[in-house]
Amino acid sequence: MTYCVAISTSAGIVFCSDSRTNAGPDVLSTYSKMHVFQPAPDRLFTILSAGNLATTQSIIARVESDLLEPDVVNLANCKKMIDVARYLSTVSREEQSGVQENISAAGFDGSATLIIGGQIEGAPHAVYLIYAVGNFITDSENTPYLQIGESKYGKPILDRIINRDTPLDDAVRCAVVSMDSTLKSNATVGPPIELMAYETDSLTVGKYRSLDDDDEYLRAIRSGWSEALHKAFATLPDINWEQD
Amino acid sequence: MTYCVAISTSAGIVFCSDSRTNAGPDVLSTYSKMHVFQPAPDRLFTILSAGNLATTQSIIARVESDLLEPDVVNLANCKKMIDVARYLSTVSREEQSGVQENISAAGFDGSATLIIGGQIEGAPHAVYLIYAVGNFITDSENTPYLQIGESKYGKPILDRIINRDTPLDDAVRCAVVSMDSTLKSNATVGPPIELMAYETDSLTVGKYRSLDDDDEYLRAIRSGWSEALHKAFATLPDINWEQD
Repeated sequence: MTYCVAISTSAGIVFCSDSRTNAGPDVLSTYSKMHVFQPAPDRLFTILSAGNLATTQSIIARVESDLLEPDVVNLANCKKMIDVARYLSTVSREEQSGVQENISAAGFDGSATLIIGGQIEGAPHAVYLIYAVGNFITDSENTPYLQIGESKYGKPILDRIINRDTPLDDAVRCAVVSMDSTLKSNATVGPPIELMAYETDSLTVGKYRSLDDDDEYLRAIRSGWSEALHKAFATLPDINWEQD
Repeated sequence: MTYCVAISTSAGIVFCSDSRTNAGPDVLSTYSKMHVFQPAPDRLFTILSAGNLATTQSIIARVESDLLEPDVVNLANCKKMIDVARYLSTVSREEQSGVQENISAAGFDGSATLIIGGQIEGAPHAVYLIYAVGNFITDSENTPYLQIGESKYGKPILDRIINRDTPLDDAVRCAVVSMDSTLKSNATVGPPIELMAYETDSLTVGKYRSLDDDDEYLRAIRSGWSEALHKAFATLPDINWEQD
């Protein structure tokens, strides 16, 4: 499985993804699920991918090869972020339909789910979640984040911490905590953890890190959060069994 | 959906269950999923149930009616906790097979998943999770809890706090936090929250509470945990983007 999250605040977008790919419990490997595109100086996009590896690879390869053809719709010539989402949805559906029949017949799931976020100069940054069947959603004031893959373990902390006004640094820490909770509870999500913070209107990759399992920061968050949670837990009141 | 958890420490067992039952998003109702049986003074059992309501009701009704027939295996005459698990597994499979064919044909899922925990005098307390198909597992030193239903949101806090030596009061608080995280992130899990703490060797119901949505203790945990989490989060270090 996979866990990817994109947090969109007024300050920018934080992207975070794991790198574990498994085809059965004994076929584990490491593939990046974060794909950054800067096809022109006025735009920057990051795609996070979940699902069948062959399918997500063919989607990314198609996005790359479309960029070499100025006559087709591609990431370089879309005018708005929603056009980018529509384009990626079309690519995703076409690449899936090419393999789905044979894959399904063999008893595998060839589907893919994507998040794309970024900005085109002159308009605000935006994020979209593209479902396997091709429809897509964006985030909202009340839910300023999108998740794909094993999303449940890491959702409670996002629900508590994140809102539109969360500073970008806090959103980065929250993404790492959300990822760490998922790593701890689910064996099919694994490091390295890729992390990128896009500052709105910067139109550059900005801040990027890949965190290995023994990365100092990941260990600091892991032990710091565990200790802080134990302390926080100790402050909670005991139940009064008599009260009704 | 449903969320139920049983935490088994050396001090006893904490049971916690929600009460929301839904057949489609507009058919919500409230049913207890915690069923306590004391068929003889030397034994006490608690069953937590998840899945199709008609099926879980027929399982509980069958357990109750079996108690009136001394010649059949029932909760009053099982010699060991594992016999109790085997008995409940048989009842569950039989009650499911009676309805499954018609229910499946109508496009519904008639399955049920159960947790049973308790103690028979002279042996330690034990908990079992009985899967829909009838096989069952118990807990372990490393994982001293069992969950059924919407289990993922509430798992991280259990993984961090609970071990065999956790005092019963702490296990109660942890169960409430685990439930509250689930309530916050999933609309199909809802109050009242039933809570029971069984102290080992007591062979009595001991401590029981049903917490409504506006219950003082549930509100105290909710606001206390949210505040404590924000404080804990604020203590975490910021990432150094330059470091590699």
